This record gives sequence, C-alpha cells and structure tokens, in this order.
Amino acid sequence: MQETELKIIKNIDIRFCEVDQLNVVWHGHYLKYFEDAREAFCDKYNLNFSDFVKEGYITYISKYTVEHKLPLRYKEKIKVEVMFKDCRTCKILFVYNVYNSKNQLACIGSTEQVVIDKEGKLMIDWPDFLKSWKNTFVKYDPVKFE
Amino acid sequence: MQETELKIIKNIDIRFCEVDQLNVVWHGHYLKYFEDAREAFCDKYNLNFSDFVKEGYITYISKYTVEHKLPLRYKEKIKVEVMFKDCRTCKILFVYNVYNSKNQLACIGSTEQVVIDKEGKLMIDWPDFLKSWKNTFVKYDPVKFE
Amino acid sequence: MQETELKIIKNIDIRFCEVDQLNVVWHGHYLKYFEDAREAFCDKYNLNFSDFVKEGYITYISKYTVEHKLPLRYKEKIKVEVMFKDCRTCKILFVYNVYNSKNQLACIGSTEQVVIDKEGKLMIDWPDFLKSWKNTFVKYDPVKFE
Amino acid sequence: MQETELKIIKNIDIRFCEVDQLNVVWHGHYLKYFEDAREAFCDKYNLNFSDFVKEGYITYISKYTVEHKLPLRYKEKIKVEVMFKDCRTCKILFVYNVYNSKNQLACIGSTEQVVIDKEGKLMIDWPDFLKSWKNTFVKYDPVKFE
Repeated sequence: MQETELKIIKNIDIRFCEVDQLNVVWHGHYLKYFEDAREAFCDKYNLNFSDFVKEGYITYISKYTVEHKLPLRYKEKIKVEVMFKDCRTCKILFVYNVYNSKNQLACIGSTEQVVIDKEGKLMIDWPDFLKSWKNTFVKYDPVKFE
Repeated sequence: MQETELKIIKNIDIRFCEVDQLNVVWHGHYLKYFEDAREAFCDKYNLNFSDFVKEGYITYISKYTVEHKLPLRYKEKIKVEVMFKDCRTCKILFVYNVYNSKNQLACIGSTEQVVIDKEGKLMIDWPDFLKSWKNTFVKYDPVKFE
Repeated sequence: MQETELKIIKNIDIRFCEVDQLNVVWHGHYLKYFEDAREAFCDKYNLNFSDFVKEGYITYISKYTVEHKLPLRYKEKIKVEVMFKDCRTCKILFVYNVYNSKNQLACIGSTEQVVIDKEGKLMIDWPDFLKSWKNTFVKYDPVKFE
Repeated sequence: MQETELKIIKNIDIRFCEVDQLNVVWHGHYLKYFEDAREAFCDKYNLNFSDFVKEGYITYISKYTVEHKLPLRYKEKIKVEVMFKDCRTCKILFVYNVYNSKNQLACIGSTEQVVIDKEGKLMIDWPDFLKSWKNTFVKYDPVKFE
C-alpha cells in the first residue's frame, strides 16, 4: 500500500509591500505564503486552529526552514504547494514548494508544529482527535511504519 | 496657565525590510514607528495597556492619519516625537512628528484611541483612573476648557 | 451629466498573522488591504506602476486616513471597495470602504498619491498620459468642475 | 590556534504588533530580529550592503532555519546573539541565539547568504574584498581549514 500525499495548491499574488529594494520579495515574507497555503490546507481537511481549541489543545510552530532557488518579484502569480508529512510522534509537519509565474521551483521549505494540552504539556503521542483525523485522511504504508 | 505639552522622543533605525522597491520606507510601516513612540510614551507616563486591563478597560485605535513630507530611507536614524492631546470626551489622541536623519520633518500623523469597558461599552466620559492620570500628568489651561 | 464612479471590489481573507493579541486585525495592516484593492483597481483600469515608469513618472503615497467602525477578526472574508476620486490638481485620490463578512461597514479610508517626474519635480498639472486616462475612464460633470 | 568567534549582541524590545492572538510573537517575525542583529554586526564589522555594492556585488539570503525553544511575549526585552561562521566556499553564514528577558534561550537559527557579481553570476570562491575582510576579522585555525 502506497502513501497518498495529502496536499493542496494555493495561488498567491505578490504584493508591492512584500518586495524590498533589491526588487525581490524580502525573505521573511515567505512564512506568510506558507501560512496562507497551510490555512487553505487546514480549511479543506478540517484541521483548523478552532478544531484544536474545541478539543482542548493548542498548536504552535516550533521549527521551520526556507531555501530559496529563484527570487520572486512584484506582481508574480505564484503557486504554493503544501503537503502533510506524517510523523510517528506528535509533530505536524508540512513541506512546501513555491513555484514562480513561469512554474519554476522558486523556494522549498518546511514547518513543524507541536501540540500542547490545556495544562501546557507538550504532547508526545498523537491525541485521539488527531489520530481520527489521520485515519480519515492519511493513507499510510503500514510496512514503512512498522 | 499654559498647557505644558506631554511628549517624548523615540529614536528608531530604519530596517532593511521596511524599504520598498522605490528605495523608500513603505507607507504602511509608519504605523509601527508611531506605535513604538506611543509605547515609549506609555512606559514613561504609566499609561500602559496592562494598566487599562487592570482597571477593567481595553483601548483600540479607532482612527489615524499620516501625511508624508519627505521619504525615509534604509539605515536612516529617525526621531519620532509623540504628544498627548487632551480631549473633552474620552478619546486618547496622540500626534506625531517624524524627523529624518538630517532633522527635517519627514512625516506628521495622529492616532485616536477609544476606551471600551468590560461589557464592551464605548466610554464617552473619561473613567476615573484616566481622570487621575490626566490630573497627575496633564497641566491644562482651565480657561481654554471652560 | 453625472459623475459615474470608477470603482472595484476586492475580496480578501484575513490572515492569522494579521491579528493581534486583542483578537482583532492590527490597525496598520489595513494599508495592505487598501493596497491590494488599489492594485486590483489599477490592473483593471490600466493605471499600473509600470505605466507610470514607462511614461517617465513615479507615484508615491503622500497622505492617508483610516477610520475603524468595527473590528475585523481572523478568517473573516472581507470586501474592500475602492473608488477613484477626481481632483483638479494632480493628486491620485482613492477612497475605501471595508465590509466585514456580515457585509457591515467596518472601516473607511483614503489614500492620496502624488506624481513625480524624472527630475524629481512634483507635478501640479496632470501629465498628458494621465489626462488621456481620465478622458477614457472618468466621466465627470463639467458644471461641478467649473 | 583557536578560532575566535566573531559575534555581537543586539537588544530588541518586542513590539505589540509582532504578537499574535496566542499572545506570543508570530514565528515569521524572528527573521526581522535576525536581520536587526545581522545589520548591527555588519555595521560594527564593516560588512554592510553598501560595501558589497561598491565592490560590484550583491548578496541575498538563500536559506534559513529557525527553531523555537520558548515563546516570546509582548514587551519582553530580548537579546539576539549573532555569530559569523566561516565557510570554505563563498557563503556568508550567521547563526543566532535569541534570549528572552529571563536570559533563557528562546530560539536558535541560521541564515545563509550567497554573493552575486555584476553579471548575476553566483560566486563560488570568495571575492578579494571579502577575503581581505576575513583576513582582518576572522582568526581561524589553519589546521582545521587545511
């Protein structure tokens, strides 16, 4: 059984205020593009922040990486592909591919989120509501995981 | 009796990421400079956000204006002068003068804040803790005010 | 002859990173929403920044005002209506109405842009390319203007 | 001969507008803190952007990583330690340690910059002006590098 990648693509237009005096998008703004894509993913797959709160949890970004291949410029229409990557321990891992308006890979990145319960305790095991979510949406290869 | 202006000056260095592809600070970033100056004012004169919360109130920016005279550029060391302006009704009004590194007036602006109580009601009269604050810090001209 | 308003509406989703610890959009971010709407307007009506550069001009935001009526919150889907307002002297004036997801007026604002020529001189009269643009798109009332 | 670390510490106050509705600094803002620290480093050690331009080069951020240990909150006074790390090939590598107001390590990170010449060619070898800079400031261990 093969892993089916859980992913979506988000279209984003580069804003004037995101471009610096080198005429390229300032590097820190990519985190917004990742967030836009991640939110669209979470909207589609019912993994919203409000779902966490309802279940008594909160989630924070704990780590991220960004690697630039090509600059992005004012008025470019980009595509951000965001993919969920399953982990054994309770880490919500997304990887991102950003394509420029010529459909060239401009940037790759990743974000890792941790899950905290009401008492502020870091979850090591996946809470039940997230296990259910994974059972519904993530088709994984049992061999790979055993 | 003359009104003594309640004001402070905040020094700010222009960041690379605040400058757009026209090589000038993007206009929307001035609100951050105003906020930096206002926070320094509130630190000095005990008018912090936490003081509002302790008294059972919250304050929001309800209105602002910004007028540019001269552009600001990367690495400029600017001065933001912020002055409290007393109002009859409960509005926290600040005006701002931004000076560039040559001490030329680069921008003027204003912000107006409203005060909301625990029930979400907009305050028309000044709450007691703000009356006390004004009695302590704002020396006003009684003639001008009646 | 009546003035026909030149306007468009831009749909925007409120981002997580635009909301502050009071759970409302931080006031300075509205300038981005205005810019998004203004850019959509300029795309539709051929008034882009690149059109200015091609003709030997540059345009800067010189003044703006923002007035909040209702707060905006995370995940709200807002509408920003942007209207061009004709001026006698060379000022590019836009006014904005921001509607929240219940279609209530949440914010009104305005931006004013000046036009600068190659020598850095501020234009008082409208340059020819902008006169042509106005002749094409802005139907004005001659009585009102004489 | 031991490598002497080339580093500085930059003090930064957390702004209201940098804190999200979870009451912590939004993760993407750390790139600004890194940039503030890096700029202070470059000011002190004559490695400014203008020095690159004067020599006919430009430098871009090509990669970065951020790892959060503890959240940062509104009004915290943080310290960002930035260290230059020498590389064989022409990559300007900085690592960052962010300390919260209790002097606890809150975040670690890194940025990598590439250098581009006038023709847009990526430099593999260090250009002469950067070799001179390294000879002046970076005391390295020849054993480690040979």
